[in-house]
Amino acid sequence: MSVMEMSHRGKEFLSIIQKAESDLRTLLNIPSEYSVLFLQGGATTQFAAIPLNLCKPDDDVDYVITGSWGDKAFKEAAKYCKPRSIWSGKSEKYTKIPSFDSLEQTPGARYLHICANETIHGVEFKDYPKPASENEVLVADMSSNFCSKPVDVSKFGVIYAGAQKNVGPSGVTIVIIRSDLIGNAQPVTPVMLDYKIHADNNSLYNTPPCYGIYMCGLVFEDLIAQGGLSDVEKKNASKAGILYDAIDGSKGFYRCPVEKSVRSLMNVPFTLAKPELEAEFVKEAAKEKMVQLKGHRSVGGMRASIYNAMPLAGVEKLVAFMKDFQASHDG
Amino acid sequence: MSVMEMSHRGKEFLSIIQKAESDLRTLLNIPSEYSVLFLQGGATTQFAAIPLNLCKPDDDVDYVITGSWGDKAFKEAAKYCKPRSIWSGKSEKYTKIPSFDSLEQTPGARYLHICANETIHGVEFKDYPKPASENEVLVADMSSNFCSKPVDVSKFGVIYAGAQKNVGPSGVTIVIIRSDLIGNAQPVTPVMLDYKIHADNNSLYNTPPCYGIYMCGLVFEDLIAQGGLSDVEKKNASKAGILYDAIDGSKGFYRCPVEKSVRSLMNVPFTLAKPELEAEFVKEAAKEKMVQLKGHRSVGGMRASIYNAMPLAGVEKLVAFMKDFQASHDG
Repeated sequence: MSVMEMSHRGKEFLSIIQKAESDLRTLLNIPSEYSVLFLQGGATTQFAAIPLNLCKPDDDVDYVITGSWGDKAFKEAAKYCKPRSIWSGKSEKYTKIPSFDSLEQTPGARYLHICANETIHGVEFKDYPKPASENEVLVADMSSNFCSKPVDVSKFGVIYAGAQKNVGPSGVTIVIIRSDLIGNAQPVTPVMLDYKIHADNNSLYNTPPCYGIYMCGLVFEDLIAQGGLSDVEKKNASKAGILYDAIDGSKGFYRCPVEKSVRSLMNVPFTLAKPELEAEFVKEAAKEKMVQLKGHRSVGGMRASIYNAMPLAGVEKLVAFMKDFQASHDG
Repeated sequence: MSVMEMSHRGKEFLSIIQKAESDLRTLLNIPSEYSVLFLQGGATTQFAAIPLNLCKPDDDVDYVITGSWGDKAFKEAAKYCKPRSIWSGKSEKYTKIPSFDSLEQTPGARYLHICANETIHGVEFKDYPKPASENEVLVADMSSNFCSKPVDVSKFGVIYAGAQKNVGPSGVTIVIIRSDLIGNAQPVTPVMLDYKIHADNNSLYNTPPCYGIYMCGLVFEDLIAQGGLSDVEKKNASKAGILYDAIDGSKGFYRCPVEKSVRSLMNVPFTLAKPELEAEFVKEAAKEKMVQLKGHRSVGGMRASIYNAMPLAGVEKLVAFMKDFQASHDG
């Protein structure tokens, strides 16, 4: 019987989901006072679940908006509490992370929300701001850099991530939450967005996305076998390093708009000094089987997404192509 | 590149989801004024989405409760409107469907909700009650008999179904909704539960469960190749027929508690006159590779779920086993 045919209540699937959780706890060194939930609906569902579970309607919460996903999270929260955008990189086209000293955090806020890596813009938090008080927690959307490097989970109240970038197929969402934050959902919270329901039922309140959870478990096993997240981070840093070096060393033929200190190890956006060459770049790259290099429709340019599963050789091939393309089109 | 690796915005996946929708429209003969949405979160998420999208908080709605799933849907609706249970089979252990004439429907109700097939109890609507007025619509949870037989979609305002029983792996939920009902979600509706968001974005507002949708598409193709849902229904009726005949012909050794006229073609619950034999029945069946025959923990007994994918030979094998088991344990 395949995983797709099993009952999610049978002991076979129970052992699959328990092993997946256990391996994720090992990988991220998740403290025992945190719950791990396997859910559905993507990070976008969590944009509502976070305020619904952590706030009353009159509560203040802070959002640092470093890209499109943080902005979407902020807008959704306005349905359920009083979110304040305490910093936005929009006017600088989302190319920066603020200095934490400069943040004017709201006293008494229930949480401070960040998007740890902005997929579209390629900006990534390298360190994390602190909540303003003991009663506030840090909440992070880590969808696009989850399990790409070690994270000190104890700094966060909630970490959430769609699985589809680094750890599994789309359709699985992982939530890591400090257990004392569970159990205070607003009355209008749909049962499927109530963390208590899922925590009390070990993510088996209704039929979970069994096959996707199985695949995530296989990836967690593989990441452990690779040496854990410190080793994974080293590989990711090497991959991103040669790509950013190629861009920065192109004498302006290629440009990365993101401030150097906060460039993402996962998503590398770049433009060509001659925008009229971009379509040709994409076309020529596709001939060499390098696809999905076009930037998000909202920002244009190019974007190389080099998640865990992209091998170093794939990035080396792209860099070689970029140099050839420049040689034949520069001047 | 596999479906799990594709961008959900690439033309390859677009053609997959469009073909899946088109084939489902063919199978169910879905009128053009209905939208088809591929969502996440199971029917349980729809228990909230239905009232959130179809009602204002003061609106009355009616629920006919023929089993555990209908009861869960009813309870969830109380968060978002004024649901009324106009009939419940609970006192008779959910073994009946009411006569529609006897229903005391609420004048002005926004919708009338049924669960078309109760998975746990094995009761199935063979016909459907009518809304009380032109402004009311019929809403059906068809999770466990979706695509098991033809349905006149035009009788319904909304049909919703988790995919995992008949049409695909868990993690995909299908909603078929009359398009004029879309666009009136309550302000507290999470964006991921707002039908308008998904309809406007062709189910691609955020990353959908791509692999699951791909699998559903393959199943729809196969059901068309089998001759469509009339032929599928005939096969399901044959399968259920020999199983119910075996139960009814066992001189009381086996018993099905469900009223004959509303017995499910999908889920066949039965008990043994000697309950002390049930554990042995399950154990002996497992030896012959027939598993998951134990009834739901809330009702006990046995349950044979014979969804589309169960071949006639599988049911014949079970019936032969039941006769052998009776022969060696009766008297």
